[in-house]
Amino acid sequence: MNELELIERIRKRAGRSPLALGIGDDCAIFRPRGGEDLLFTTDQMIEGTHFTRSLPAAAAGERALARSLSDIAAMGGEPRFCTAALAVPKRHERWIEEFFTGLLRLAKRTGAALAGGDLAHSEKIYCDVMVCGAVPRGQALRRDGARPGDAIFVSGRLGKSWTRPIRPRLALGIALRGRATSCIDLSDGLSLDLHRLCAASGAAAELARLPVANGSTLDRALHGGEDYELLFTLPPQYAAPRGTSRIGKIVRGAPGAVNFRGRPLAPRGYDHFARRD
Amino acid sequence: MNELELIERIRKRAGRSPLALGIGDDCAIFRPRGGEDLLFTTDQMIEGTHFTRSLPAAAAGERALARSLSDIAAMGGEPRFCTAALAVPKRHERWIEEFFTGLLRLAKRTGAALAGGDLAHSEKIYCDVMVCGAVPRGQALRRDGARPGDAIFVSGRLGKSWTRPIRPRLALGIALRGRATSCIDLSDGLSLDLHRLCAASGAAAELARLPVANGSTLDRALHGGEDYELLFTLPPQYAAPRGTSRIGKIVRGAPGAVNFRGRPLAPRGYDHFARRD
Repeated sequence: MNELELIERIRKRAGRSPLALGIGDDCAIFRPRGGEDLLFTTDQMIEGTHFTRSLPAAAAGERALARSLSDIAAMGGEPRFCTAALAVPKRHERWIEEFFTGLLRLAKRTGAALAGGDLAHSEKIYCDVMVCGAVPRGQALRRDGARPGDAIFVSGRLGKSWTRPIRPRLALGIALRGRATSCIDLSDGLSLDLHRLCAASGAAAELARLPVANGSTLDRALHGGEDYELLFTLPPQYAAPRGTSRIGKIVRGAPGAVNFRGRPLAPRGYDHFARRD
Repeated sequence: MNELELIERIRKRAGRSPLALGIGDDCAIFRPRGGEDLLFTTDQMIEGTHFTRSLPAAAAGERALARSLSDIAAMGGEPRFCTAALAVPKRHERWIEEFFTGLLRLAKRTGAALAGGDLAHSEKIYCDVMVCGAVPRGQALRRDGARPGDAIFVSGRLGKSWTRPIRPRLALGIALRGRATSCIDLSDGLSLDLHRLCAASGAAAELARLPVANGSTLDRALHGGEDYELLFTLPPQYAAPRGTSRIGKIVRGAPGAVNFRGRPLAPRGYDHFARRD
């Protein structure tokens, strides 16, 4: 199978698309609706850094898209389309097909039509998935709007194993439009991502309690990455949305400072460029 | 330097942006203008496959963006913004900064504001650059509109060394809007890319002559990749646009078939997934 044939097979399986022109030309063509802002995010998934070959190809494809969809959810967006760049060792045509089986299954369920991409060879498996989402104009959830007095919430339970499928919290993100003062997805661990949200908002946070996943530990819930839950703030008059837990509140203080049960909590989550050696 | 500091340095150097929200949140926010179609393309550049370490970091950053800009040029688009995903070995902070020096220099010159991206670690250097461009609604140049009788043109000279900087033919692409019946950029070699254009258009081609780069050979001009010139067709009444050469014509025949000086020309350009071993 050569590249043209492989792309043609993926194109056929991608099915109907809301794009004006999908896979097969130099660019995909997207015709924006009026009154919408478009959201863009891109996430890499690299063999040896983010996953190992023990992850089946279809699960890898689903996960690669889900990571970017989680960023769209964090901004309150509805997915519109995605592009997938994939590099694999030689003789991995079957792996590529299974990767796209997983990616396209999630793409169809969430409305993120596959618009195009790029295939190449590399020694290790590498992929990069870009997703475009949409929100009504001016309604994107940002990480810089948390204010002292806001309550802090998190969806689901924290400290989950990275081998679980990611379920991007798209419906929750949409439901938070016009209500949440800030929102971020938990990809690098609560302590680091809450620090980022507070730093962007120029505020501090007091954490009180955490919903720890079954079989996990408080340390993993605080610092483990790859949870892909939403962390967000609401003004005090709102109750916790369904499926979420109130875990603390935003306070005045040094921007980015986080206290957990009265003690400073260092941002120890996953930083790709921190020195660990 | 940790990831936050590194991203902050890149963000500051990215400068003013036409985006509603640029680097630093879960997604970038882009507010489309009315009456435009948006173009999307993504291209990988991988150490060992597309370049070696003999290429300086700044040249690699410029080249990574230029490859995608060439696809925008081929559709007649004006660049609007880009995202850059980059993975490097540990202790490559300086390499990353120089990569972005090169990328941002070309981004500023062409209007492709850096909107966001992703940084990670990997053994080999890997990058994937996505570019969004815009065209007036319905005016994108596609590869499927060539008709028998159209003349075939190419910009510049062919068979150039891959070590030369890429100059994406953005002004030519814009000038071809409303005139060219088809257009494609030459990334994998003339014989393969002309075959693709003809196959998409359901037509065949007769090639007569080629503008060969100084010091190159006819074989490289026919089959070498990485030229990043535009190959396009015009109805017979048009003269060759400045800086381009008429190289043949579209004829009736088996879709995708190409003759060169009366003999069949096999598509031998670079196919990442063709078996070569």
